[in-house]
Amino acid sequence: MKYIYSFDEGSKDQKELLGGKGANLCEMTSLGVPVPPGFVITTETCRDFLDTQRYPDGFDKEVALNLAKVEESCGKIFGDKDNPLLVSVRSGAAVSMPGMMDTVLNLGLNDETVQGMIAKTNNPRAAYDAYRRFVNMFSNVVLGLSHELFEEQMEAIKEARGVEFDTDLSENDLKELVALYKAVVQKHTGQPFPENPHDQLKFAIEAVFNSWNNDRAITYRKINNIGGLIGTAVTVQAMVFGNMGETSGTGVVFTRNPSTGEKVLYGEFLMNAQGEDVVAGIRTPKDIQSLQEVMPEAYSQLVDIKDKLENHYKDMQDIEFTIQESKLYFLQTRTGKRTARAAIKIAKDLVDEGLVTKEQALLKIDPECLGQLLHKQIDPRAELNVIATGLPASPGAASGVIVFESDEAVAADEHGHKVILVRKETSPEDIHGMHAADGILTSTGGMTSHAAVVARGMGKCCIAGCSDIIIDKKHRKIITRDGIEITEGTIITLNGSTGEVIFGEVPMVEPEITGEFSEILNWADQAKRLQVRTNADNPEDAKTAREYGAEGIGLCRTEHMFFEEDRIQAMREMILSDSEEGRRKALAKIQPMQKNDFREIFKVMDGYSVTVRLLDPPLHEFLPFFDKKIEILADSLGVTFEQLKNKIESLHEVNPMLGHRGCRLAITYPEIYQMQARAIIEAGIEATKDGAKVIVEIEIPLVGNASELKVLRREIQEVIDEYESAIKFEVKIGTMIEIPRACLTADEIAEHADFFSFGTNDLTQTTYGLSRDDAGKFVNTYIERGILGHDPAQKLDQAGVGALMKIAVEKGRSKDENLEIGICGEHGGEPSSVEFCHNIGLNYVSCSPFRVPVARLAAAQAAIRHS
Amino acid sequence: MKYIYSFDEGSKDQKELLGGKGANLCEMTSLGVPVPPGFVITTETCRDFLDTQRYPDGFDKEVALNLAKVEESCGKIFGDKDNPLLVSVRSGAAVSMPGMMDTVLNLGLNDETVQGMIAKTNNPRAAYDAYRRFVNMFSNVVLGLSHELFEEQMEAIKEARGVEFDTDLSENDLKELVALYKAVVQKHTGQPFPENPHDQLKFAIEAVFNSWNNDRAITYRKINNIGGLIGTAVTVQAMVFGNMGETSGTGVVFTRNPSTGEKVLYGEFLMNAQGEDVVAGIRTPKDIQSLQEVMPEAYSQLVDIKDKLENHYKDMQDIEFTIQESKLYFLQTRTGKRTARAAIKIAKDLVDEGLVTKEQALLKIDPECLGQLLHKQIDPRAELNVIATGLPASPGAASGVIVFESDEAVAADEHGHKVILVRKETSPEDIHGMHAADGILTSTGGMTSHAAVVARGMGKCCIAGCSDIIIDKKHRKIITRDGIEITEGTIITLNGSTGEVIFGEVPMVEPEITGEFSEILNWADQAKRLQVRTNADNPEDAKTAREYGAEGIGLCRTEHMFFEEDRIQAMREMILSDSEEGRRKALAKIQPMQKNDFREIFKVMDGYSVTVRLLDPPLHEFLPFFDKKIEILADSLGVTFEQLKNKIESLHEVNPMLGHRGCRLAITYPEIYQMQARAIIEAGIEATKDGAKVIVEIEIPLVGNASELKVLRREIQEVIDEYESAIKFEVKIGTMIEIPRACLTADEIAEHADFFSFGTNDLTQTTYGLSRDDAGKFVNTYIERGILGHDPAQKLDQAGVGALMKIAVEKGRSKDENLEIGICGEHGGEPSSVEFCHNIGLNYVSCSPFRVPVARLAAAQAAIRHS
Repeated sequence: MKYIYSFDEGSKDQKELLGGKGANLCEMTSLGVPVPPGFVITTETCRDFLDTQRYPDGFDKEVALNLAKVEESCGKIFGDKDNPLLVSVRSGAAVSMPGMMDTVLNLGLNDETVQGMIAKTNNPRAAYDAYRRFVNMFSNVVLGLSHELFEEQMEAIKEARGVEFDTDLSENDLKELVALYKAVVQKHTGQPFPENPHDQLKFAIEAVFNSWNNDRAITYRKINNIGGLIGTAVTVQAMVFGNMGETSGTGVVFTRNPSTGEKVLYGEFLMNAQGEDVVAGIRTPKDIQSLQEVMPEAYSQLVDIKDKLENHYKDMQDIEFTIQESKLYFLQTRTGKRTARAAIKIAKDLVDEGLVTKEQALLKIDPECLGQLLHKQIDPRAELNVIATGLPASPGAASGVIVFESDEAVAADEHGHKVILVRKETSPEDIHGMHAADGILTSTGGMTSHAAVVARGMGKCCIAGCSDIIIDKKHRKIITRDGIEITEGTIITLNGSTGEVIFGEVPMVEPEITGEFSEILNWADQAKRLQVRTNADNPEDAKTAREYGAEGIGLCRTEHMFFEEDRIQAMREMILSDSEEGRRKALAKIQPMQKNDFREIFKVMDGYSVTVRLLDPPLHEFLPFFDKKIEILADSLGVTFEQLKNKIESLHEVNPMLGHRGCRLAITYPEIYQMQARAIIEAGIEATKDGAKVIVEIEIPLVGNASELKVLRREIQEVIDEYESAIKFEVKIGTMIEIPRACLTADEIAEHADFFSFGTNDLTQTTYGLSRDDAGKFVNTYIERGILGHDPAQKLDQAGVGALMKIAVEKGRSKDENLEIGICGEHGGEPSSVEFCHNIGLNYVSCSPFRVPVARLAAAQAAIRHS
Repeated sequence: MKYIYSFDEGSKDQKELLGGKGANLCEMTSLGVPVPPGFVITTETCRDFLDTQRYPDGFDKEVALNLAKVEESCGKIFGDKDNPLLVSVRSGAAVSMPGMMDTVLNLGLNDETVQGMIAKTNNPRAAYDAYRRFVNMFSNVVLGLSHELFEEQMEAIKEARGVEFDTDLSENDLKELVALYKAVVQKHTGQPFPENPHDQLKFAIEAVFNSWNNDRAITYRKINNIGGLIGTAVTVQAMVFGNMGETSGTGVVFTRNPSTGEKVLYGEFLMNAQGEDVVAGIRTPKDIQSLQEVMPEAYSQLVDIKDKLENHYKDMQDIEFTIQESKLYFLQTRTGKRTARAAIKIAKDLVDEGLVTKEQALLKIDPECLGQLLHKQIDPRAELNVIATGLPASPGAASGVIVFESDEAVAADEHGHKVILVRKETSPEDIHGMHAADGILTSTGGMTSHAAVVARGMGKCCIAGCSDIIIDKKHRKIITRDGIEITEGTIITLNGSTGEVIFGEVPMVEPEITGEFSEILNWADQAKRLQVRTNADNPEDAKTAREYGAEGIGLCRTEHMFFEEDRIQAMREMILSDSEEGRRKALAKIQPMQKNDFREIFKVMDGYSVTVRLLDPPLHEFLPFFDKKIEILADSLGVTFEQLKNKIESLHEVNPMLGHRGCRLAITYPEIYQMQARAIIEAGIEATKDGAKVIVEIEIPLVGNASELKVLRREIQEVIDEYESAIKFEVKIGTMIEIPRACLTADEIAEHADFFSFGTNDLTQTTYGLSRDDAGKFVNTYIERGILGHDPAQKLDQAGVGALMKIAVEKGRSKDENLEIGICGEHGGEPSSVEFCHNIGLNYVSCSPFRVPVARLAAAQAAIRHS
C-alpha cells in the first residue's frame, strides 16, 4: 500500500483517495502551475489510522522520503535552525466540508528555527507573528485547547500596550506572546509545547485524521447527506509567505465575474499580507486589475495561468494565490460559486466558446438557484435586523405594513400600502387577504400548510410556522421571542427564501429573466425525459405555469373553488343537510360555477392534460369556527345557533388528516363526486366547442383500498356515460397514491386506474407518522441533533417514502406496463426528488408554477446523469 | 368433463366440487345411511354456466340419466300423473353461506301430478299444501317475484275464511290458493306458470346457479372474506314428506348437548309435520327422547346412525331427519354449532373417547368463544329492549345506573349502586371513575380509544363510539337517535360483546371456568410455538394475566401511571417548565413512584420478561382542558390563568396522533426517558433483592428513523451503566415498530434494537391513513357497501399492514437472525391475526389479560394448521 502521493504523482481524478484539495494541488502541479511543493497522505491511510489508532508500518519512511523531496525542491531543511522549511497541514476529504475539519499553518517553527526564519527573511516581526499564530493553532487543533485561552493573552498584552489592533504589536510583544502561549500550554496540558518539528508534524497529521470523527464533522456529513467516504486526506505543503515586504502579497481571483457571469478576471489582492489578513478585514484589499501596475509580470503570469486552469477544468475557477518576493504561487483552485444570473450566463458562454457541450453546461447550474431569478430578492449588500426566523415556505421577499386580518389587508392594499398579512395560520377564507398582501407570515403550520401551499401557487413570499413570534391580536401587535413588540402598521420585511423576518424596509433586487434563461431551459427540455406539469387551481396560475413551460396540470385542487364568497354558502348548505336530496339541491347550485372554472382552465391548457382532483378536505374545514360567524350562518339557514353549533361539533375530528376526507366523503356522499364529474364533463364539452383540445384526468384522492376506486370509478363512469355522444375529448379516471396502503396494494388498485399520481405530501406524513402542521415544534431539534438530514416535507425521503413509491410503481406497472405515473406533492419541484422520480421511471413531475423552471432543469440533469 | 355426481359417487372430501351439502349427502349415502336418493351438479358446471349463460353440451343427458336412477330407486316417475317423483333443488357451496342462496322444494308438481300425489298419499290437503308452497317458492326464487305478492293472497283468503293460521285452511282453500298464485304469476310475468316438470327443473337449476352472483351472496362472501370459490353446486334430491299422518314426522338432533356438551342425544321432533312447520313455531316440538315411545324402531335406528355419523365425522353432528310412513330418512348432517362451554367439554371428551387427537380437538374450538367463558353474559333467553348500538369495545355485560362524571361514579359505587359511566370520551383522568363503574359507554371514539383499551385491560364491559346517543350533560340525560330520553340514575344494560345498549336491567349468566378449560389450554400450550404475553400496566392486571397463562408482559404502558392524583401535578410541573432544570426537578418527584410501580410488576412477573414502553402520548394529554381546572392549576403553579392558558394552547396539535409524542418527546426532552430508565433499573434491582427473577425490555415507541433509536439507546445505556455493578438481571433495549417508515427501514433500526414489537394499532392507522377516533363516522358505511370486509382495527389487515410487517421481519432478521419480534397491538388477541403472526415468524403475541386464553388457543391452532 502506498500511503503518500507527492504532488507530482496524483491527479484530479483521485479525489476519493487524495481529497478534493489534494487532488487539485496534484493536478495543478502536473499542469506546470507553480504550486509550493508538498505531498498528500491518502484517505485510506486515514481509515487505517482511525481503525487502529496507530500509523501503519512504513508510514514514517514515506513521510521522510516525501519531506526530503520538498526540502530539495525548496532548498530548505525541515527543522533546520538556519534555513528552516515550514509547512502547512490541512485536511481535505473527497467532498468539500468547509470549516468542518482542521488546519495547522507555519508548522516547523520553534525557538531555534524562528531564528533561521528571521535570518532568511530579515523580518523578525513577521517571523514572530508566524510563530505565535502557529503555537495558537497547533494548541487549539492538535492539543485541543480552547482558542479563548490564547485570545485572553492577546487581549491582555494589547491592553497593557494600549493598542487596538494585533498589527500594532511590536516584534518583542509577539515574542513575549509566544512565551505566554507556551505557558498556557504547560499549564493546561501539564506538558511543554512540543519543540521538535518532526513531533509537531506527527501530532498534527494525527489530529487531522481524528478530526474526521469530531462532532462537527459527523453532523455536517449527516446534514448534507454525505455518506460512503472513508476518511480525510492530509495535505502537507511548504509554506509561502505573502507578508515578506513590498514584493509580496496574496489574493483571490475568479476567472469570470461570479455575480454577472461576465468573462473578465475578477478579484482582489493585498500587498505584504497573508491570507488571514484579508479575512480579518483590517486592511482593504485592492481590485485585482491594479496588480497589473504594481507587479506587471506576476499579473501577466496570473492571467495566463487562470486561463489555463479554466480551460483545463472547463468551468469558472476560484483561485487563491500568494506572491512571495515577486514569485507567484498557486495555493488552490476550485470551481467558483456564483449567483443564479452568473450561472446561466457562464453556462451559455461556455457552450458558445465551445468549451463544453450543452449537457455538460446544464450540469453546472444548481436548479434551486433558478428560483432566485423569478422572485424579488433582498439586496445581498443590505444590513438586516433579523428579529425572528420561521420556515422558508415560499421564496422571494417583500416589505410592508403588518395587518392581522384579511379584510384589513384588502383595505390597506386599496389605500396603496404594501401589506404583510400576519396570522396564526391561514384558512381558505383568507384567500382575498393573501391576494391583497405582498407577503404572508404565520406563527404556526409547516411547509405544506395552507398558507405555504397557496402562497407558492401565487408566487408570493411566505414564512410559515414562525414560532419565534407570538401574535397578540387583542393589542394588535406581535411580540418576538426576544421581547420586541411590533404594532400593527409597522413595516417589516420577509425573506421567504431563508425564513428571516426583518425589522423595517430593506432594499430589494428585482427578478430578471434573460434570453439566456429561456435558452438554457430549452436545452433542458431537449435533454429531459420526465414531463413537467404544474399544480394550479385557476386560469391565472395555469397561465403563469404555461409561460414557465409547464406541460399540463398535474394537480388541480377543486376545494379552493368552493371557498369563494358565492359558493361557500351553498357548500355549507350541502354539508349541513341531513338528506341526500338536500345535498343534491345545494350541489346543483355549485355545479355551474365549477363548470365555468374548469372550462377556463381547459382553455388555457389547450392540448395539455389537466388532472382534476375531486374534493379532498374534511367537510368541517368549510364551516365557520367562531361563534359570531356561526350565528350569522344559523340565521341564514333558518336554524338555531345551538343546532348549528352541535352539528359543527359533531363534525369535529381528532385527527382530521386521517379522518373523513378524500374518497371517503364520496363513499358516504356519492352525490359530491357525481356533481364534480358532471361539471368537469360539461366544462370539457364547452371548452372543446370553444376550440380547445381538452385532455382530462379525473383523480380520486386518498384511495387505500382497490374497492374504493372500483366503486367510485363506476359511479363517475355512469355520469360520463350520460354525456357519451357529446364527449369529443379524452377522459381518464385515476387516483392519488398518498397513503402507504395504496402503495402496498398498488397492483389491485391499478386494475381500476388509468393513472397514478403520488401525493407525497400526505404519503410523507403517513409514512413518517408525522403531521406537518405539528412537526414545526420538534423538527428543528431533529435536524440540529443530526437525526434528520433534512425536513422530509421538503426533500423526498428516499429510504422510507421512496421505498413505498418503488413498490407502488412496480406493482402498478405489473398490471399495466404503460400505466401513467406522476408526482404532484411539493417534492415535484425539488431537484433531488425530481432525480429520484426520474430514476424510478415516473412519467411526470408536477409542481407550483414558479418551480416549473427548477423542475425542468432538474429533470434534464437527472436524464443526463443517468443516461 | 363430468357434470353430475350421483349421491353414491361422491365423498365428503369433494366439497370444492360438490359443495358442503352435496359432499355430505354423498358421504352419508356411501356410509349406508338412508338418504333420499339424488345427485349433485358440480360447481365447475356452475362456473361454466355463469361464464356462458348456457348449459354445456351433454348436460341434459347426464341430468336425464341421473334422474332415471333416482326414479328407479324411489319407484316413482318424475312428472308422472299417477306416481310422481318430487324433488328439491338446493344450492350448496364449498363454504357454508347460510340463507345467502336459494332453494326450491316439491318441484315436479303441476295440476296433473298433484292428483297422483293425492292418490298415492291419500292426503289431498298435504298435497295441495305442498303444491301451493312450491308455486310460491318457485315463483320467488326462479321467476324473481316478490314473496309479498303471494303473502297478500294468503292473507286475503284467511281473512275471507275468518281463520288465523295457515293450518286452519282447508284442502279447497289451498287448491284455490294455487290458482290465485298462478294468476299472480301470469299477471306479473305475462307468462303462465310452467307446468312441465322438466322445464321446472331446468329453470330451477339455472336460478340456483345465478343466485351465486346475487347481491346478497356477493356481499356475504365479501364480508366473510370468502374468496377463491368458483360457484355453487346444485343438489337435486327426491322429496320425502313428514306430514303423511301419524307414522310420519320430522326432527333435528344433536349428537351431544350443544349447550353443555354432555354426551346425550339432544333435539326435538314433530309428528306429522314438515321442516317448515317446526320453524313456523305454531306447534311445539317434542323432546327427541319421546320418539322412543312413539316409534321405537325409528328411534333405535336414529340412535345407531347418529353414533355412526359422529364416529365417522369425529365431531358432534347436527342432523336433520324425516320419517315418512315409518321410514327414517336423513336429509343433512353437519358439524353442530355449540356454546363455548360445550365446545370445551366436547373437545375434551372426544380426546378421552379416543376419537380424535389433542391437536384435532383443539382445532374444533373457536378461539373467540373462549372470551364468553371469562365474562358475564346476557342470558340468551332474555327479551331485550335495545335502544342504541355502538362498537363492541370490551366484552361482557353489565347493568347499572347511568352517571356522567367519574367522581359521581365513585360516589354511586360507594353507595352500593352498580354504575354505568356514560361519557363522550374518557381520558386518563377518568381512571378512578372507570374503576368504580361496572360498564363504560362512550358516544365517540373507536375500538382503540382510551375507554376501549382501558376497559379491556380492566376486563370491564365497554361500548365505544355509540353515535346513536347524544349526551346532554346540562340536563343530565342521554337522548337516543329515536328520541328516547334517559335521565341520570336510570338503569341501563350494556352488552359489550355486541355493542347493544339495552333499557333496564337484564338477567345475566355468570362466567364459569372449568377444569376442562384449563386442560384444553394446557394442550394448546404444548402445541403452540408463539409465546403469549399480556398488555398490563399494573400489578393487578399482571396477576390476572398470569392466571390466564400469560408468559410475560409484552406491553406495559407507563403513561397511565402518570395520571394518578399524586403524580399528575408533578407531571404538569414538568410539562409547563421552561427549563431542563425545572423539568428534571419535577421528574425527580415522579421517579420513586414509577420505581415502586415497576418493582411490583416485576415481582408478579417473576421469571417472565416485562416490556416497558417509555412515555408515549403527547404532553398536552396530561393538561387540563376546562377553564375551571386550568384556573386551579394556575393557582397551584403560581402563574396567571392567561399564562397557563396560552402555554396549553401552544401545546395544542392539529393531528396529535402524528404529533410530538413517543420518542420525539425524548429527542427534545431527553430527561424524561432518562428518569424512566432510572426508575426501571432501580425497580429491577429492588425486585431482584426481593427474590424475583427480573427480565426487562425497555421499549422506545414511535421510532421511524434508526438515528432516533441510536441516540436514545445511547442515552438510556448511559443511565444503565451508572448502575452496572448492581444489576443482576437481563436488560434489553428495543423499539415499537408502529409507523410504516420503521418497517421500510427495519434493517437500519435492527442495528440498534435488541427486539421489535409491532404496535399494530398505530401501524394500522398510519398505513391506512385512518384515525380510529374519527373512523366511526364512516367505517360502517364502508362495511355495508362491501368495501371493507371487516374493521382493520379489529382484524389485522394482512394485505396492507401485514405486507409492511413482513418487510419489517425480513429486514430486521437480515441484520440479526435471532431478533426477538412480537406484536402488542389489539390484534395480538384476535385469532386470524394471531395466525398471521405465527406464519410470518413472530416470537410472541401480546394482548389484554382477558384475551390471553383466546390467543393461546389461536396460537396452537396456527401451529397445528401450519405444522
